[in-house]
Amino acid sequence: MSAQFITIEGLEGAGKTTQAEVLCNWLTDRGISFVRTREPGGTPIAEKIRDLVLAHHDERMDPYTELLMVFAARQQHVETLIKPALVNGQWVVSDRFTDATYAYQGGGRSLGANYIQQLEQLVLGGFQPDTTFWFDCDAQTGLNRARARGSLDRIEQEALSFFNRARAAYEQRALQQPQRFVRLDASQTVEAVSEQLIQALEARYA
Amino acid sequence: MSAQFITIEGLEGAGKTTQAEVLCNWLTDRGISFVRTREPGGTPIAEKIRDLVLAHHDERMDPYTELLMVFAARQQHVETLIKPALVNGQWVVSDRFTDATYAYQGGGRSLGANYIQQLEQLVLGGFQPDTTFWFDCDAQTGLNRARARGSLDRIEQEALSFFNRARAAYEQRALQQPQRFVRLDASQTVEAVSEQLIQALEARYA
Ligand SMILES: Nc1ncnc2c1ncn2[C@@H]1O[C@H](COP(=O)(O)OP(=O)(O)O)[C@@H](O)[C@H]1O
Ligand SMILES: Nc1ncnc2c1ncn2[C@@H]1O[C@H](COP(=O)(O)OP(=O)(O)O)[C@@H](O)[C@H]1O
Ligand SMILES: [Mg+2]
Ligand SMILES: [Mg+2]
Repeated sequence: MSAQFITIEGLEGAGKTTQAEVLCNWLTDRGISFVRTREPGGTPIAEKIRDLVLAHHDERMDPYTELLMVFAARQQHVETLIKPALVNGQWVVSDRFTDATYAYQGGGRSLGANYIQQLEQLVLGGFQPDTTFWFDCDAQTGLNRARARGSLDRIEQEALSFFNRARAAYEQRALQQPQRFVRLDASQTVEAVSEQLIQALEARYA
Repeated sequence: MSAQFITIEGLEGAGKTTQAEVLCNWLTDRGISFVRTREPGGTPIAEKIRDLVLAHHDERMDPYTELLMVFAARQQHVETLIKPALVNGQWVVSDRFTDATYAYQGGGRSLGANYIQQLEQLVLGGFQPDTTFWFDCDAQTGLNRARARGSLDRIEQEALSFFNRARAAYEQRALQQPQRFVRLDASQTVEAVSEQLIQALEARYA
């Protein structure tokens, strides 16, 4: 099997970081060489763009400015880190990727899918993850977990309705691309979610 | 006449900043209310994007990352400053705009016009300057002037061939849109260039 590009998606507090650990341990146990990364960010320049996107500014950031910055960071990430790793035979595990843009900017900010689709096509062509693990829970459950973590960045501080729209957009993506998406019930305990994840990994990759 | 959007274009050291002063004085003398701005930048968030674009990084910045960041800054600039000013009846004078992207990223970095055109259409629709003053001189002349100014940013430090390609791309833009473009011979003395500029202003706007 060629090196796989795996992404982890879900709302704040869904358990992405927690379960990425489980996923990476599973790969390590099988002797699979991989790179773990995240979006927005993943390279020094892309992380600087991330800082700008997530920072609080006195000026309102136009939602399309945010969208273009996210894709600028993604361009850098894909060309500098993701594609070279895959070509080199390493798997890539990314905490968020383009689906998060459909969810947060398309759904949360209500920009819709059409503009994002055109930008995605221009920037990425058909470049897609091989598998996307979507850790799905209702927005309030995730936010309760995430907000216990500490101070909130510019996106984390959005209202519940923002995250409800983001969840609906994830759901639409999952329905449109059922072969790529694996939905996991992230409302369960950490252990129960890990078990779902490992079963899905065994089913796809063992 | 409705409020006009005027842009100033040309290579490093062509005299844009010098002649912008002359242009703004001409407007002031006629009691025309205007905003003077620049790209990349023009708003606090767009200026932060500018800083990232022009800074030296340890990592190579992918040319498409650069392009997307320039358009992210432009989106913020257009929506937050340029369009509100024009709606408000103020003219806008911008040191650089989209033509600079065709010149520097399209020509200088050899990305070509096609990708930029698609991105421009997506981001700006048909939004264009009313008049573009193109201060044209050969690349070496401009660089000699500019390099006397001090330390060079990430783009200013490119090779002569980069700026030769940028100039050729400006020329192509000017040929394609002769009604919008006013070419001025920027190789002349400051006073002679100012005189050309004022004559062009009188012809278009007096
Ligand atoms: N299934 C779960 N049940 C309860 N708490 C969880 C669960 N998964 C993660 N957490 C906790 O919720 C918080 C957010 O989890 P995290 O993995 O950082 O989420 P994300 O990366 O998706 O924002 C952490 O404190 C984590 O320990
Ligand atoms: N026509 C000209 N002839 C000679 N020097 C010039 C001319 N126009 C500008 N300069 C000088 O060249 C340098 C760059 O000019 P500037 O207006 O900053 O160019 P730009 O903004 O296009 O980079 C400045 O030191 C300026 O005084
Ligand atoms: Mg996380
Ligand atoms: Mg200048």
